Amino acid sequence: MTHFAPFTMQDRGLAYGDGLFETMRLSRGQLSWWPEHFARMSYTCCVLGLPIPDEIDVRVAIDSAVAQSGKSEAVVKLMYTAGSGQRGYLRAEPVEPTLAVLIGDVPAADSQWSVQGLSVGLLKQSGGIPIPALSGLKHLNRLPQVLARMAWTKGVDECLIQDENGLILGGTQSNFYWLENGRWFTPPIQGSAIAGIVRALLCRYLGVTIAPVSIGRLALAQAAALSNAVRGVLPIGCLAGRVLSVDQSMELVARWQRLCDLQANVSAKPLDSAWFALQRQVAVLDSGSQVRCHKMFGEKG
Amino acid sequence: MTHFAPFTMQDRGLAYGDGLFETMRLSRGQLSWWPEHFARMSYTCCVLGLPIPDEIDVRVAIDSAVAQSGKSEAVVKLMYTAGSGQRGYLRAEPVEPTLAVLIGDVPAADSQWSVQGLSVGLLKQSGGIPIPALSGLKHLNRLPQVLARMAWTKGVDECLIQDENGLILGGTQSNFYWLENGRWFTPPIQGSAIAGIVRALLCRYLGVTIAPVSIGRLALAQAAALSNAVRGVLPIGCLAGRVLSVDQSMELVARWQRLCDLQANVSAKPLDSAWFALQRQVAVLDSGSQVRCHKMFGEKG
Repeated sequence: MTHFAPFTMQDRGLAYGDGLFETMRLSRGQLSWWPEHFARMSYTCCVLGLPIPDEIDVRVAIDSAVAQSGKSEAVVKLMYTAGSGQRGYLRAEPVEPTLAVLIGDVPAADSQWSVQGLSVGLLKQSGGIPIPALSGLKHLNRLPQVLARMAWTKGVDECLIQDENGLILGGTQSNFYWLENGRWFTPPIQGSAIAGIVRALLCRYLGVTIAPVSIGRLALAQAAALSNAVRGVLPIGCLAGRVLSVDQSMELVARWQRLCDLQANVSAKPLDSAWFALQRQVAVLDSGSQVRCHKMFGEKG
Repeated sequence: MTHFAPFTMQDRGLAYGDGLFETMRLSRGQLSWWPEHFARMSYTCCVLGLPIPDEIDVRVAIDSAVAQSGKSEAVVKLMYTAGSGQRGYLRAEPVEPTLAVLIGDVPAADSQWSVQGLSVGLLKQSGGIPIPALSGLKHLNRLPQVLARMAWTKGVDECLIQDENGLILGGTQSNFYWLENGRWFTPPIQGSAIAGIVRALLCRYLGVTIAPVSIGRLALAQAAALSNAVRGVLPIGCLAGRVLSVDQSMELVARWQRLCDLQANVSAKPLDSAWFALQRQVAVLDSGSQVRCHKMFGEKG
């Protein structure tokens, strides 16, 4: 049984961003891709040095919040922090984590997106190298995204972030894909980019390949798309001023939808277990080098 | 009149670390160096795009919390966030900031510190928060410090952080000073280092000079010290295994104490106005390049 402390003003999530979040889609009353979300959450706990909660306890908390909301279509946001603590960067021992579940409405989709696609701008965000071990994780230190979101140009639906080396990191709140010579690609996870669950699934099941992309290479893109856990896969119709046909990206959208339907039909038994999901997640985090979870792997591997 | 929204679970400080904090020392019932803290807070608001609160309103909130606590010696921690918001990186308009004031005990000092000095270790931490404009600011994205604090070797009182270029950034929770050829130096603010108020005062009033320092240059140090707003200036007696005499660093401690006494005696009229403090703060932030507060400077300059 995982003990979750109540949320207080002294919570380290507020004080330092010392924790993580997961944003999930509730669709037809089902939580989509829960094993994958829990696997990422577990991995993030591992890197941050937080206790991995009992999966059942977390699900009970989520299901209870969903039931109270009465919704069958929703965005489920889970926050898990290092709990309340005295002032100072050092955590109390033992850590008594805080778990919070927020149920929100699904944002309205623009009906034109499947016809014309999204309009996507481009932002430069120079920076030093962030702590590589934290790259890809959905931790609570999100000022780079907040600043990027404030810098969007008017009239766009999302912006891609380009780092100081000219490489595309992804969208401010989505992962990015482009079609080149008939193959779909996505950039590696670097800097402030998040290793999305939808991205992991596209790479594993729908043949998307990881490759770096500079603004120059984008000129070769025959089509492009974005993804996140709330909206799934969406076609891009205008990329940094260049108009793209959405026909080919809508094929990727359709394949994603078939994968979701398949998953929904075997919801009692996901495509594979959370453990395989975790291995995949780690592989797809692909920031390389910094796997600090040997103990966890050792126990389960 | 600044409107402060109540704190909720949807607070963007919790969700994204979208806000700032200040840690201040209450000494003999007086809040030390308030104009300097408010100046840094204002500058941080400016970089983060948060409304600068009315100084009087913030002081009323602090003084009320101090009075309720009944303490005359305390650590006063102020958190100021972008307030409650819908899910998503974009802030609601207009932002209704949250202000929280926490009053804590002054941590016990080790009586041996003035005799033997602190024992200080060395940590390597590649990277930091990836946005240069955020360097030095006391924003709520503090996972680099949390991870560094967890990595302290046993038996030390603080650790210096060395970045991937071999440069010392400062302590995990303090600024760093070293004496070389009879002059005191402190490293420039880079990466995850915070531009401390005590550091700013030492540079302005006590002749401390900003210079980069690698581990090699540290071998030239005749003495060394640390500072933060809670403890002031403390001597280092052991630096990465090398024993240092604390006599010369205790001279810096004594000079700091005289400066504090002078400030306390003219508490109704600080050494100079908050506006000069702000100019100084910006100069001492010295991360260069990214001053985004032209409007604010223009209005007051």
